Amino acid sequence: MKKYLETPMESIFPYDVVELDPKGKELVVLDQSLLPHQEKFIHITAPEQLFYAITLLKVRGASAVAVAAALCTAMCMNRYRTKSVAMLEKEFLRVKRYLSISRPTAIALAKALERMELRFYKARSENYPDSKSAVRAIKAALTEEARAIKAEDIRLSLAIAENGLSLMSQGMGVVTHGNPGHLSTSRYGTALGSIYVAQQKGLAPNVYVCETRPQLLGARLTTFELTKAGVETTLVCDDAVPVLMSQRMVSAVFAGCDRVVANGDVVSDCGLLSLAIAARHYKIPVYCFTSSLSIDFVTTAGKYVKIPEGPSYEVTEMNFASPSAAKGVKVFNPGLDVTPAHLITGIVTEKGIFKPSELNLLKENNG
Amino acid sequence: MKKYLETPMESIFPYDVVELDPKGKELVVLDQSLLPHQEKFIHITAPEQLFYAITLLKVRGASAVAVAAALCTAMCMNRYRTKSVAMLEKEFLRVKRYLSISRPTAIALAKALERMELRFYKARSENYPDSKSAVRAIKAALTEEARAIKAEDIRLSLAIAENGLSLMSQGMGVVTHGNPGHLSTSRYGTALGSIYVAQQKGLAPNVYVCETRPQLLGARLTTFELTKAGVETTLVCDDAVPVLMSQRMVSAVFAGCDRVVANGDVVSDCGLLSLAIAARHYKIPVYCFTSSLSIDFVTTAGKYVKIPEGPSYEVTEMNFASPSAAKGVKVFNPGLDVTPAHLITGIVTEKGIFKPSELNLLKENNG
Repeated sequence: MKKYLETPMESIFPYDVVELDPKGKELVVLDQSLLPHQEKFIHITAPEQLFYAITLLKVRGASAVAVAAALCTAMCMNRYRTKSVAMLEKEFLRVKRYLSISRPTAIALAKALERMELRFYKARSENYPDSKSAVRAIKAALTEEARAIKAEDIRLSLAIAENGLSLMSQGMGVVTHGNPGHLSTSRYGTALGSIYVAQQKGLAPNVYVCETRPQLLGARLTTFELTKAGVETTLVCDDAVPVLMSQRMVSAVFAGCDRVVANGDVVSDCGLLSLAIAARHYKIPVYCFTSSLSIDFVTTAGKYVKIPEGPSYEVTEMNFASPSAAKGVKVFNPGLDVTPAHLITGIVTEKGIFKPSELNLLKENNG
Repeated sequence: MKKYLETPMESIFPYDVVELDPKGKELVVLDQSLLPHQEKFIHITAPEQLFYAITLLKVRGASAVAVAAALCTAMCMNRYRTKSVAMLEKEFLRVKRYLSISRPTAIALAKALERMELRFYKARSENYPDSKSAVRAIKAALTEEARAIKAEDIRLSLAIAENGLSLMSQGMGVVTHGNPGHLSTSRYGTALGSIYVAQQKGLAPNVYVCETRPQLLGARLTTFELTKAGVETTLVCDDAVPVLMSQRMVSAVFAGCDRVVANGDVVSDCGLLSLAIAARHYKIPVYCFTSSLSIDFVTTAGKYVKIPEGPSYEVTEMNFASPSAAKGVKVFNPGLDVTPAHLITGIVTEKGIFKPSELNLLKENNG
């Protein structure tokens, strides 16, 4: 699997954004709200701390949030002192339910917590000499499961990255949107993973980073991690991307997503729709990078996805020295947007690259 | 001409952004770089001050810059103490040349200064009893001409506004881009002029303002003037506009421009191209509002327009508490963009609404 990664990625990122300490009693996460200025870590010992960190976008990215929630659940159980399996179950379900609403739209989060629950009941169903050892064994099983979820996320990222490599050529100009990178996942990223692999193969990709208003995920986070990795990086305002495209400076759009629904519509950080419309106008392909865990086969089309309204201060004040708009002005700030399947060229997953219309193949493989 | 403006616009804007004092010895301009927080005026008594103000975007907008330059030229002559017509001519030409490069892409600026020069030589060609009275008469003629340029700009704005009214209906949702308003012209604005007239007619327009990165002209200036005028105003990030369009919340795009070239291509603040591509995708009409003075019949197509590169700090730092991107990242920041004529539904001028392909009619009328 690691064939392309001869230079270890660790030389670029000496840490993961979500790590569980060896004893399983503390979760350490990078506070992404302080980037690119400050690399500060938060030490989490209670679910409320993670909930708060997710709400304030200190921890973000579909995969990173899912892995953080799984590790946090295990960590909370390890810290919970009881000899009663029933008490442990009650606390487990409380933490699980609580963390599952920290980011309601993320399908990967729900899936990771479901997997933790499955493991809980599997471990509980074993035979134990006494209640105390049952509690100990369940805690160990949950810790193992959470670590496995993270390890699998890293494996998925690498597989996605390598599949995406087939889309790249020497010195290729790529537009990215949001932050589909190391900071959004357990390691390496989705769309940016392909960039890193290409960089290590000597393809010298030329990446144009959309600043991605309102949260400036591209400006703050993607430029941070790409420049750290030595990738040729150019920041561009979202509304200037068509100028790049009209000048034939880019050959593809590489984006991440919050999730892909059954008909191939892509739910992502707001701005991908705009980018995809422009790309179609200039006949430039749009690839969406995601693990198959973020494919939502239950929702049949993007129009059924409820789009959360983001807070207005993100537009009028966030990151600004002073409010940048007239006092009291109303704000339209969709937290996500839905890009219809017909504007997406391909979905790059760990299992290969699929047309949006071919997602059902992935479902059969998956089942 | 004023038939729709029964409520005087002065109740909304008690001042013009560019004013010459009654004695013609001082130019007073609003410092737009401090908006929306502070309404502070700059008192200008030398051309260097205006040049600086234009460069730092304290004075901006094609019409406002042109009028300011004409008034400044007259003001400088009024302050220039000489009894020699030759000396006055030399100083006049120096100031004119100097101010003409303050914003090289603005066609209206060049035209206004040409008009001042024409008036200079017309006044000089009269018979005078002596050199002193010739100097006095030329100064008076230049002041009169500059004031006439401003008065005409106001008349043009009103005529454009009234022509644009025919495009509007009750409660209509309109997207605006940049700041085609009171702050960009001598009074009322171009695209926003129509909004104000519609508002006064009781049509209650519903205006969605693109924040217009990187300078945030929409967020900082358009929301400031629209909310002051009591117009229903909603701020939206540039990359979220297609979401509005997909939800059928807007019926038209109203934009200003830097200039329109002979084939109907529109040169404007960066972002109109992106907006026009999205509007075409959703079959929403795009209208560009401009006086015929900003039509450049010499340049045959948009591809021949040199696009200035904006400073990178506009993207990485402007208006931010701290840099919002990784240190040293490269920036692509086109100062303008070119929207091809085929994406523009109509050009709204003081002489009527024209298809981009019909601009030659306007030229014949003009000549």
